[in-house]
Amino acid sequence: MSTATMQRNKENFLDTTVSSSDLLEHWQGHRRLTRRVIELFPEDKLFNYSIGGMRPFAEMALEFIGMAEPGLDGVISGEWPSIDQIQHRKEKKPSFTKATLLDRWDEVTQKIEIEWPKISAERFRERDVAFGMWEGTIYGFILYWIDNEIHHRGQGYVYLRSLGIEPPPFWER
Amino acid sequence: MSTATMQRNKENFLDTTVSSSDLLEHWQGHRRLTRRVIELFPEDKLFNYSIGGMRPFAEMALEFIGMAEPGLDGVISGEWPSIDQIQHRKEKKPSFTKATLLDRWDEVTQKIEIEWPKISAERFRERDVAFGMWEGTIYGFILYWIDNEIHHRGQGYVYLRSLGIEPPPFWER
Repeated sequence: MSTATMQRNKENFLDTTVSSSDLLEHWQGHRRLTRRVIELFPEDKLFNYSIGGMRPFAEMALEFIGMAEPGLDGVISGEWPSIDQIQHRKEKKPSFTKATLLDRWDEVTQKIEIEWPKISAERFRERDVAFGMWEGTIYGFILYWIDNEIHHRGQGYVYLRSLGIEPPPFWER
Repeated sequence: MSTATMQRNKENFLDTTVSSSDLLEHWQGHRRLTRRVIELFPEDKLFNYSIGGMRPFAEMALEFIGMAEPGLDGVISGEWPSIDQIQHRKEKKPSFTKATLLDRWDEVTQKIEIEWPKISAERFRERDVAFGMWEGTIYGFILYWIDNEIHHRGQGYVYLRSLGIEPPPFWER
């Protein structure tokens, strides 16, 4: 590859690599996989089982919901609830069963699907302060929420394996 | 938000959301975190410890290397080694210590940094067959390698916690 080509590629650095619709599909694909992981847990283990003092998988899943839903609102409106407000909502939240957790999951999935087009192309690259606390770019926040889901879901895979339950293949979305 | 604005946002769907340099920094940030996780494992536990019949963390880290390095070559050249060839290389590979694994890790990190600008903006959106086996887009392959690293590193976090070792904060890159 010539130096001129590499130079041109560098100039194109800001060209589209991952588009808005790619990122939406990427997220929703991961959400479909996480849903299957929630489903695979036996009811009691979903809420009570853990390793090494970590949280049960239901708490992790509720964290994904608690980032995705108010996070999407913040991305769209530029208004973010504070961590204290989220904490307060959490305390008031009803206790879940696997079925009600899955219902909440589906509600958020649908909300993401419907509201995503409200995010303008420019907005993805704007800087903001998520939840009044984390400074960064909008695309960076969204990647963070996806990554956080992958990270903790990977931990859910260890819980399942240690319970003798085969988790779904990672590449199936 | 008006219908006209939502329509305009839909038309902008293919505008830049995540750029080439964003994706590079995203990957390298995750690689820095994974390196710290490798470092935190006691030498013997890195190669021998596991839960639920899963692989020790060293094997997962070697998988990340085994995807990233020939994967990057494939992305740049369009020529992919087959899974059989990779398997063959693996069998011939010397046994690792934590120190030599970290050296290999750093070698691949540097290679990614140096060779990344060889990927043209157009290339990221091309379709190809990775390792002669997985059909998809180039950006999709790269996201997959990053996600796979996050997923298994999350499992490494459970190994560490169950060994009484505090893993690094997930958000520190």
